[in-house]
Amino acid sequence: MEFFQVKGVTEAQEELLFHLVERTPRVEKVKLDVAVGRVLAQDIYADQDVPNFSRSTVDGYAVRAADTFGAGEGLPAYLEVVGEVHMGCWPEWTLHPGTAVKIPTGGMLPEGADAVVMVEYTEVLEGGTIEVTRPVAPGENVIRRGEDIAAGQRVLEQGKTLRPHDVGALAAAGKEEIPVAVPPRVAILSTGDEVVPPGTRAEVGQVRDINGPALAAAVREDGGNPVLLGIVPDRYEELLGRAKKALENDLILISGGSSVGTRDVTAGVIEALGPPGILAHGVSVRPGKPTILAVVQGKPVLGLPGHPASALVAYGLFVRPLIRRLLGAEPETFSRPVAARISRNIASAAGREDHIRVVLKERNGELWAEPVLGKSGLISTLVKADGTVVIPAAREGLTEGEAVKVQLC
Amino acid sequence: MEFFQVKGVTEAQEELLFHLVERTPRVEKVKLDVAVGRVLAQDIYADQDVPNFSRSTVDGYAVRAADTFGAGEGLPAYLEVVGEVHMGCWPEWTLHPGTAVKIPTGGMLPEGADAVVMVEYTEVLEGGTIEVTRPVAPGENVIRRGEDIAAGQRVLEQGKTLRPHDVGALAAAGKEEIPVAVPPRVAILSTGDEVVPPGTRAEVGQVRDINGPALAAAVREDGGNPVLLGIVPDRYEELLGRAKKALENDLILISGGSSVGTRDVTAGVIEALGPPGILAHGVSVRPGKPTILAVVQGKPVLGLPGHPASALVAYGLFVRPLIRRLLGAEPETFSRPVAARISRNIASAAGREDHIRVVLKERNGELWAEPVLGKSGLISTLVKADGTVVIPAAREGLTEGEAVKVQLC
Repeated sequence: MEFFQVKGVTEAQEELLFHLVERTPRVEKVKLDVAVGRVLAQDIYADQDVPNFSRSTVDGYAVRAADTFGAGEGLPAYLEVVGEVHMGCWPEWTLHPGTAVKIPTGGMLPEGADAVVMVEYTEVLEGGTIEVTRPVAPGENVIRRGEDIAAGQRVLEQGKTLRPHDVGALAAAGKEEIPVAVPPRVAILSTGDEVVPPGTRAEVGQVRDINGPALAAAVREDGGNPVLLGIVPDRYEELLGRAKKALENDLILISGGSSVGTRDVTAGVIEALGPPGILAHGVSVRPGKPTILAVVQGKPVLGLPGHPASALVAYGLFVRPLIRRLLGAEPETFSRPVAARISRNIASAAGREDHIRVVLKERNGELWAEPVLGKSGLISTLVKADGTVVIPAAREGLTEGEAVKVQLC
Repeated sequence: MEFFQVKGVTEAQEELLFHLVERTPRVEKVKLDVAVGRVLAQDIYADQDVPNFSRSTVDGYAVRAADTFGAGEGLPAYLEVVGEVHMGCWPEWTLHPGTAVKIPTGGMLPEGADAVVMVEYTEVLEGGTIEVTRPVAPGENVIRRGEDIAAGQRVLEQGKTLRPHDVGALAAAGKEEIPVAVPPRVAILSTGDEVVPPGTRAEVGQVRDINGPALAAAVREDGGNPVLLGIVPDRYEELLGRAKKALENDLILISGGSSVGTRDVTAGVIEALGPPGILAHGVSVRPGKPTILAVVQGKPVLGLPGHPASALVAYGLFVRPLIRRLLGAEPETFSRPVAARISRNIASAAGREDHIRVVLKERNGELWAEPVLGKSGLISTLVKADGTVVIPAAREGLTEGEAVKVQLC
């Protein structure tokens, strides 16, 4: 085990993705109304023009634009109103020069019309004539047939995580059954002789499993399918058997105990699973250093630290990107950090990435990130935090008042 | 209808929440492993101390701190090792002065011990003795019993939206069945003679329902339960009947056509539903102005504009806060805007809040928000956008290069 060096975060992330055997995500069809948040598994094309007719964007009169050229308050254009367009109906008129048709927002332009005059710039005279007091250009107040989406056009690309308006676009394209990526199955094994299930009373010396449920929640939130495989004692043979069985899933997390003995058992088991095996035995990040990264039969196998804070940092750095990759999701272009200032000096070892839990407080209209006091291994510390500030490996700390980016959690 | 003034966004939001008859959210129990993202419906208390024993945070030797005072490289303390702590077991020794016990990370401190010396600062000598080359203070490298969470302590508060580490805290508190708020039922009615279901071919003059599916997706994303009630023609009696029936839900959205006729039918129906009735007939926001806000029998009834862009802006301003309130969720303290600079001048009428769809582009290491070109009513425009910039009502526009906050969508 000691041949493996502790690796930097970026290097470790890249190696892990490099050794991952990429598979096309499995595809399932879901109904449009439950597609939000899912990752599109195929490109989507429109079957029809949207709209499939030229449509007014205002309430007013459909006209031939040329008939209004030069019209103004002092010299209105006079047009004969020859009918009215009703919603959802095909207008039966062809618009001849010098005529107009009353039209509601969303109504279909009749043949011959190429613009709409807003009702505000018209005056109804006796005898079915209107006065137009402002000219319109051809195409004005009109969405042309196919202007939104043309038939055959690609509406959405494979890999898109569907937002509400993307769902709207799928509806416009006539899709009711949406091809989305099947959530990758993420096996979660908790190890430790002292670990008992959350529903059990912890006897003195025992602790309830926190990492299993917390990791499962994170996997679910990120679009994966958590497969909770329970708690395994720190015995090599037993853990090896369970880990081999876990390889039928797409990604395997072994949340280890934090003691040297437990870590060695986990590392030994991961090494025995097969090639290419362990890529990094430790990562330069705090918390989260005792993380083991491996790939076995093209599938990622990660040994996560036992402390919940460490396990969740390692999760965010390594597991979340893997799940997104297995979903075939396009990378998130913009993360959503909140800008703040750090409330006090923090030291950090060069060459190590530090993740500092903070609470956000507003003072004098500015947002300040205050490091959460208390020992870092405590779950109560995590619960209090609003987010995390990362001190990059190249830095040796932060200075009070310095601008930082807070990744909310 | 003309008695009702167009209202400002904040005023309209406040009136809506003021007239809402608050009900305690209905409670359901869900398993721990599906609780993430749900809103806690009761305070959660710990049943046991966490940890329920004093625990080592390092690999090393449990000692009486006083035995190490003054120890150093030149003058080490010598302690007799009388045993070893195993994970999950109750150590049988009581530690007497001058003795130490080997202990792994997470192991239970024996009676009499009050600190742990890291293995790095010890040297094993012959005959079961260790040399300690650095002193420890009482409590050092130890998490005391109940230090993380004390028995009976409140772990999480009602109204909390559960994040992965909150789920971890629930596990630590021994909860397997979590009381969460039942998602409020949000009825969604689409109106318009020209509107057909997404799965149908749109004949010339017809359009597919975009707002129904897009709003349902947004409701689902925000923790509500969308109840899609289909498409209703613009006929007063028919819409009134469907709207009355919809009142059995917790919140009612009528996504209207955009024409004056449709809007009038929707407004008339909402007015006829009962007191207190319509609170605002139009809101000073673009897009989204033709929004009707009402409360009927203590339940919010909203007439949303027909244009998808407008409907989704009105949704974000009025419906999302209502769903969070109905869930009993504590307000989001920090939104997640991205800081950028606006790429060009944009004019805006004073007294009106403008929501500008933008794409984000990185130039010279800075993020720029470029307004999305194209007509605002198009769904293809929405799909392209990364987020929204809000121009407050008090401003008359933005100047190129000005710092803006982009709310991602």
